[in-house]
Amino acid sequence: MEIKSYLNEQRQRVEHRLATLMLAPIGAFAEHIEAMRYSLFAGGKRIRPILCLAGAEAVDDDEAVGQRALTVACALEYIHTYSLIHDDLPAMDDDDLRRGKPTNHTVFGEAAAILAGDGLLTFAFELLSGPASAAIADQARLRIIHTIAHAAGPLGMVGGQSLDMLYEGQPVGYDELRRIHRSKTGALITASVVCGALVAGGNDEQTAALRTYGDHIGLAFQIVDDLLDVEATTAQLGKPAGSDLQSEKATYPSLFGRDTSRTMAREAVQEAVVALANFDHRADPLRSLAHYIVDRNK
Amino acid sequence: MEIKSYLNEQRQRVEHRLATLMLAPIGAFAEHIEAMRYSLFAGGKRIRPILCLAGAEAVDDDEAVGQRALTVACALEYIHTYSLIHDDLPAMDDDDLRRGKPTNHTVFGEAAAILAGDGLLTFAFELLSGPASAAIADQARLRIIHTIAHAAGPLGMVGGQSLDMLYEGQPVGYDELRRIHRSKTGALITASVVCGALVAGGNDEQTAALRTYGDHIGLAFQIVDDLLDVEATTAQLGKPAGSDLQSEKATYPSLFGRDTSRTMAREAVQEAVVALANFDHRADPLRSLAHYIVDRNK
Repeated sequence: MEIKSYLNEQRQRVEHRLATLMLAPIGAFAEHIEAMRYSLFAGGKRIRPILCLAGAEAVDDDEAVGQRALTVACALEYIHTYSLIHDDLPAMDDDDLRRGKPTNHTVFGEAAAILAGDGLLTFAFELLSGPASAAIADQARLRIIHTIAHAAGPLGMVGGQSLDMLYEGQPVGYDELRRIHRSKTGALITASVVCGALVAGGNDEQTAALRTYGDHIGLAFQIVDDLLDVEATTAQLGKPAGSDLQSEKATYPSLFGRDTSRTMAREAVQEAVVALANFDHRADPLRSLAHYIVDRNK
Repeated sequence: MEIKSYLNEQRQRVEHRLATLMLAPIGAFAEHIEAMRYSLFAGGKRIRPILCLAGAEAVDDDEAVGQRALTVACALEYIHTYSLIHDDLPAMDDDDLRRGKPTNHTVFGEAAAILAGDGLLTFAFELLSGPASAAIADQARLRIIHTIAHAAGPLGMVGGQSLDMLYEGQPVGYDELRRIHRSKTGALITASVVCGALVAGGNDEQTAALRTYGDHIGLAFQIVDDLLDVEATTAQLGKPAGSDLQSEKATYPSLFGRDTSRTMAREAVQEAVVALANFDHRADPLRSLAHYIVDRNK
């Protein structure tokens, strides 16, 4: 399949739904909503939402299922966007640029940026529990909310970011690096695919297989991210190249070198594809996505 | 009824369940969990959880219902605690003391405090969707999650804090003051009582009555908070007295004077009690709580 056109098509569906679900910047809270919208519509790749859609499609390619998955996909993107806003704050990574644009706090100020993140995180759960996702069965919705909250919470993404801050400037080994990545980025990527399966009514075996797939592409994604940070120019990346090295963060290239890192990423992609062995052609988007992750250059 | 002993008893139940549900400060994420626990167990009055328990009791005083309400009550306290941590940050109100203790960021640093808040907020939704609240019917759980997320989100608490920051140092009128309070503190207080009703299987009429009760005591609570800020000594309050005035925040006493403010608070309490007209003796705790709110001195 043609992954580029698939990605474009899905991204457009996600953009459209994100815009439909998001609050309009009017009324008493217009400034706050504007700050949330700024980062939400700053042009992300929408990888997590697309993984959710592809995960649902692998189980059931019915159009109605895809429509239901779209709302969950958007909730994942709200949460991802909140995490970027908070990660960029002066007290965290102190980044001025994100996706080639000034970061949220440089535009709206620190207080507004913290609150924009808080608002996006909370709004995601409002969507998942409200009318926007009423077409999903109650039990599945609760499992989806729980999967996302666990992946984004103290033992997942937030915990991972805490570890990342804790270890900053310290020499860390492979175990710590793996733990940071698995929680900080891996958990939400895996949750994205798993939630797709849950929306589509996947059985335990299918859900477990997609969880394994998610774990492997999460790893590949992170290794490639580290490699791109070393290799890419600032223009390609939208943020200063080599910024991870400057702040002495442990990365795959710094621990294993670039060649070994690239091999590790390819192996993880192969493991991900193996996990899809019991799925038919409807999992082709997930297979192509796995390969795309190591071949992407931005 | 003896409100002091009721509050003590309920507070102990809440403290016990909070400790049971909260993550232990062990393992890879121990530091992050420690930062969350620090503020969670810093000795709050647990007003929101107790309102949730009393709201449930007003509808159904069965012991099993009370047990189910306890988990929801704790989720509300996690969210309240997160909001205090973020409000105290240097970029927000920049407070060093909270409940007589150093604020989260002064102990753990800004990054860890932001993440402790993020972690508590997310963990609340994990609790509400996971095994800890499995005894509540699925549909009621989703309504509870939606009620809390809406009250805490961009059109509720977070939006209110944004307005509060936006208007800081500016002259604001009664309309703006009311809007700030209704969203910043009122929304979660109302949600606490409403969620009690939802746990207990309250019908639409009961839930609406408790919503009205919550709106009125939320107003009374805020007016009294403003009054206490002017009147109390630093020792009583655990934070510098008159700090709202120093930062030129609009308050009820600054707009209406102390006497009129106190009258407004008493009237709001009476309205709250009127809203309970169709409830029997099981709503006595809510009635006593309403009076307690204007009579408290810390």
